[in-house]
Amino acid sequence: MSECQADACELLTPMEIYKTLTAQGNKVRALKSENADKADIDTAVQLLLKMKCEYKKLTGQDYKAGCPPTEDITSPENGPGSEDGDDVVDPWNVTTNNAKGVDYDKLIVRFGSSKIDKELVDRIEKVTGQQAHRFLRRGIFFSHRDMHQVLDAYEKNKSFYLYTGRGPSSEAMHVGHLIPFIFTKWLQEVFNIPLVIQMTDDEKYLWKDLTLEECHRYTVENARDIIACGFDVNKTFIFSDLDYMGMSPSFYRNVVKVQKHVTFNQVKGIFGFTDSDCIGKISFPAIQAAPSFSSSFPQIFNGRKDVPCLIPCAIDQDPYFRMTRDVAPRIGYIKPALLHSTFFPALQGAQTKMSASDPNSSIFLTDTPKQIKNKINKHAFSGGKDTIEEHRQFGGNADVDVSFMYLTFFLDDDEQLEKIRQDYTSGALLTGELKKCLIETLQPMISAHQDRRKQVTDEIVQQFMTPRKLDFEY
Amino acid sequence: MSECQADACELLTPMEIYKTLTAQGNKVRALKSENADKADIDTAVQLLLKMKCEYKKLTGQDYKAGCPPTEDITSPENGPGSEDGDDVVDPWNVTTNNAKGVDYDKLIVRFGSSKIDKELVDRIEKVTGQQAHRFLRRGIFFSHRDMHQVLDAYEKNKSFYLYTGRGPSSEAMHVGHLIPFIFTKWLQEVFNIPLVIQMTDDEKYLWKDLTLEECHRYTVENARDIIACGFDVNKTFIFSDLDYMGMSPSFYRNVVKVQKHVTFNQVKGIFGFTDSDCIGKISFPAIQAAPSFSSSFPQIFNGRKDVPCLIPCAIDQDPYFRMTRDVAPRIGYIKPALLHSTFFPALQGAQTKMSASDPNSSIFLTDTPKQIKNKINKHAFSGGKDTIEEHRQFGGNADVDVSFMYLTFFLDDDEQLEKIRQDYTSGALLTGELKKCLIETLQPMISAHQDRRKQVTDEIVQQFMTPRKLDFEY
Repeated sequence: MSECQADACELLTPMEIYKTLTAQGNKVRALKSENADKADIDTAVQLLLKMKCEYKKLTGQDYKAGCPPTEDITSPENGPGSEDGDDVVDPWNVTTNNAKGVDYDKLIVRFGSSKIDKELVDRIEKVTGQQAHRFLRRGIFFSHRDMHQVLDAYEKNKSFYLYTGRGPSSEAMHVGHLIPFIFTKWLQEVFNIPLVIQMTDDEKYLWKDLTLEECHRYTVENARDIIACGFDVNKTFIFSDLDYMGMSPSFYRNVVKVQKHVTFNQVKGIFGFTDSDCIGKISFPAIQAAPSFSSSFPQIFNGRKDVPCLIPCAIDQDPYFRMTRDVAPRIGYIKPALLHSTFFPALQGAQTKMSASDPNSSIFLTDTPKQIKNKINKHAFSGGKDTIEEHRQFGGNADVDVSFMYLTFFLDDDEQLEKIRQDYTSGALLTGELKKCLIETLQPMISAHQDRRKQVTDEIVQQFMTPRKLDFEY
Repeated sequence: MSECQADACELLTPMEIYKTLTAQGNKVRALKSENADKADIDTAVQLLLKMKCEYKKLTGQDYKAGCPPTEDITSPENGPGSEDGDDVVDPWNVTTNNAKGVDYDKLIVRFGSSKIDKELVDRIEKVTGQQAHRFLRRGIFFSHRDMHQVLDAYEKNKSFYLYTGRGPSSEAMHVGHLIPFIFTKWLQEVFNIPLVIQMTDDEKYLWKDLTLEECHRYTVENARDIIACGFDVNKTFIFSDLDYMGMSPSFYRNVVKVQKHVTFNQVKGIFGFTDSDCIGKISFPAIQAAPSFSSSFPQIFNGRKDVPCLIPCAIDQDPYFRMTRDVAPRIGYIKPALLHSTFFPALQGAQTKMSASDPNSSIFLTDTPKQIKNKINKHAFSGGKDTIEEHRQFGGNADVDVSFMYLTFFLDDDEQLEKIRQDYTSGALLTGELKKCLIETLQPMISAHQDRRKQVTDEIVQQFMTPRKLDFEY
């Protein structure tokens, strides 16, 4: 679609096109009933078909006379909060009363996304020729939007790019923060595609009692941990919003485009903003939306605006991308596809998302082997029984045991994990022994991370964060 | 003030400081009544005094126990619209029922600004050693905020800078659009200071049915007309928001700072935004605010954030700067000073602001001598009588005559202007003769402008619009 057409589309809302379409349908019927000139009827029908096609492109729905377009991004099911008893999941709050954690099947229905089923996992294996990552095998990435379209295109040699991000609210990152990055690194490797990582330091400044300088410093420190996950500098661009906004007129242009096509009513419905919120918060969603469009990175994509985007993220970020997907066709862009992960549980249990401000709520990337051992032994919520005798007799509950949950994230060997689950459930494996497994999995993983982080010099961070061409031709 | 202190201030609202202050006052009284240790009392008093000083810096008001800080920027008097029968003046609407135009004295009271009186005009002449510009002599710039402070500082060799702007909504500029630029050029010359000119192409994209490309093209074309007013390239920086936002991390940082300190409630009160407005409009005021702070232009001010700013603009832009002045102390910056102009009347009469979309509503910078003559003869609202006989007998009304009003803007000779006024009022000068005076004033002025505009090459525009150091040391 040419820029010009795209901009013409921007001017009509789905409802306006719907009305024009209805009028055109009436006209065609009138011409036919009048036995008008065949050429006139043909012209009118041609126009009608073209408008129907535009309508579908814009709304994702087929035109049906008498059925006005539905606007589903701000429907109450998708909005902040939820019905009584439901889990609360939005970018700032994740709460549930269930010890097993959030009910993700319910969330898929509420958010209107699709389940990552065996068929999709198999297909990813077939397309990439690689065993699926344990996060896919174990349902840690459990929900998606449009992943099949991405694979369809990829099979036809149409590439895509990855976009993920982090809000740098402190220097401290815990193992849960690594989930999207571990998975994104795997995706980058098996698909061999560019990756952009947004550090939303502007968001943290707007939401927290932090100075701009602090937020920017956290960006750089967090980038060091992200780089230590092993990303390829030739394929990865990490950017601070505070810096990149001031370095890329193309990025700002996309931000403004999104800002023009989203109303306060919409962000109120999606994010629960109120009249007392600052105007920075209200307009921020456009900044998280913009990296979903390849034209925000002309240095990488050579100005192309049609490279599709795949976003791996935790499910709480979905509201941003529901909004983005709603706006995309109205500004002539492709909707980003998504892969959603579950939440990483706090050591104290799966009822809440972790807090970076409570050092005992998780294993931090700076923890020593001793701290790891102590935290797990002291704080990891156990699904075991109160006494050894009871445990041997009745077995533990792996579903609510945080040590076992952590192992599902970090122990790669499926057979070993299954054996641990069976032994724990049967009572053959005691809580202390289960915790030992986790300690022995995390200690080398964290110290290897710390070793790699030490290698990440200021120069390397600088390299990753410099807007530049990557090793891909467009 | 150091960056660190400034950021600490940002965290407290005037009301929060007020409460802390009241508590501290109570503490001092308690200590005294208890006959506490003198050192303790002194420490508490010291802290109280320091807090009072902070409070004044933040609110511009003296602390008075029992009188909480007033928040006047969103008071109904200053809000959009107005009481029944009052003129409507906001950035998007200017309407009045009075043929003489808006009642500016009333506006000064409503907006809470100060009248530019003879004393101030005399003072400007004294400080600059130059005759005041005709716009000052004739009350065309009629209102100000803090102009005396600017002059106080200037007399102590503390310089300031000028900031003005234009919303490029079309290629066509009319003579009325030149008013702020003609006056700003004079200010720049007599004070010899830097000038920044903001082209709000992002605003026009958000408000109008225009593409980004169109808005940016209008910016460049309008910049050519602005440059043709004779600005010195070594002292003037013209910038497109769409470009400069993407070229200056410092500018974006100031935008975000303002956005954090203004709520939707506030912009609703000031600008009349509603829930149906797009989030781009809602956050835009921060972008018009940011150039009021010298740290938005580190290339010009060498990173200094304490260079005061003076903004010459039409009075309808004041709401943006009321907001800016409210935010400034809360983010550690100096409030900008302002000089407000009246509106330039449409040829059809002073009841409304002109429209760039109606070619007959004013004299355009592209008009030929013949078009100028025809438009004035045909469309300029006359204060003359219906017949020559009546006119000779009763005289014309210069107060509502648009040709005479235009002469007050463009005829520099005070004596000649006064003679025209007297002769027209007495009936000695006929409407046709008055119009001839205006035609003979505008024709050479416009064709000189067109000649200068032709000299403005793409390279010259490029030079003006390149972020760079100007010929001033900071």
